Amino acid sequence: MILHGYFRSAASYRVRIALNLKNVPHQHRYHHLRKGEQRLPDYLAMNPQGFVPALELDDGRIITQSLAIIEWLDETFPIPALLPADAYLKARVRAFALALAADTHPLQNLKVLAKIRQMAGEPAGQDWAASVNADGLAACEKLVADTTTRFAFGDQPSLADICLVPQLANARRFGVDVSAFPRLLAIEAEALKLTAFSNAAPQNQPDFEPA
Amino acid sequence: MILHGYFRSAASYRVRIALNLKNVPHQHRYHHLRKGEQRLPDYLAMNPQGFVPALELDDGRIITQSLAIIEWLDETFPIPALLPADAYLKARVRAFALALAADTHPLQNLKVLAKIRQMAGEPAGQDWAASVNADGLAACEKLVADTTTRFAFGDQPSLADICLVPQLANARRFGVDVSAFPRLLAIEAEALKLTAFSNAAPQNQPDFEPA
Repeated sequence: MILHGYFRSAASYRVRIALNLKNVPHQHRYHHLRKGEQRLPDYLAMNPQGFVPALELDDGRIITQSLAIIEWLDETFPIPALLPADAYLKARVRAFALALAADTHPLQNLKVLAKIRQMAGEPAGQDWAASVNADGLAACEKLVADTTTRFAFGDQPSLADICLVPQLANARRFGVDVSAFPRLLAIEAEALKLTAFSNAAPQNQPDFEPA
Repeated sequence: MILHGYFRSAASYRVRIALNLKNVPHQHRYHHLRKGEQRLPDYLAMNPQGFVPALELDDGRIITQSLAIIEWLDETFPIPALLPADAYLKARVRAFALALAADTHPLQNLKVLAKIRQMAGEPAGQDWAASVNADGLAACEKLVADTTTRFAFGDQPSLADICLVPQLANARRFGVDVSAFPRLLAIEAEALKLTAFSNAAPQNQPDFEPA
């Protein structure tokens, strides 16, 4: 299978981690978002949303949306599991993931920030991105206030950790003081000990470019 | 169980539909978002994100995030299923749901629109909301261009339809010309024939207020 992504895309980063954790053989195709390659007709035919990532299966079928891709991977390659077996704990993992993947990340993607900058100027775009990241992470810090496990919701990495690590990277890029989130930082430190996470980082992708 | 919601919240509307489809006994508590009741300490103790919906289980445990709640309901009360059994089709349903629940709805919630209006004025807020809804629905129209089933991805309603119907209501409220999305409108018409959908509509909730 082929993962269509971009080094700096947090959503692509999530899927890279999941593929690594599952140890599923795959190739990469990189689409340069700042050059608008995600809006080329060939890419839009694959994903009409014009977003990365998209996972191209060996038979040519396409799955879009990072969380849908990761749930599919978890069902198709069940070991190691990326969601807890317990239904309530699973709901907490998904809720944490969505607090970032739905309520945080889409509010600070390239397309939204371009609109904010056009509307109110460059500093407003920067402030917007920082504030969105800080709010999302502050909520997440509270969502794991009662857990003491190695990762967010257990001693094995889950979808929650997969969403957290890329979002913390974004937050730092936008100048957020992440020291306000000690529990999240402790989880991130554990995650980055695993090559599945560290190898998936933007700076370790072949299409990486310094900011 | 108790669903904490608000009549106009599209995310609450999704969970109301799912509870109705599953025929799960439940009560409602309404939190007036425009009066800021979702930011009262008692509510924040339940959901640190300060968003509705939240599902309070009979033992007091809380599940937040509409998609996490609906997935939990689907696992806990499996009939009727809200996701197809086939893993690939399930991924397509989830991707469609996320195109609305992650990439559309969070960009036009009350909090975001208040920030846009503060930054660039009332008409900019209205334009923003309309444009976000139109973009999301345009992508979704393409995501179901190849399906001819009664609902988005089958002849029984799924999570995709549960996300679509509330978003179309939002789009109309923001003045979007939804006639550009004939396939989505046909799916909505089928869904609204079911009382599970129509009874969940904002105007049929006891906390309803005209705009």
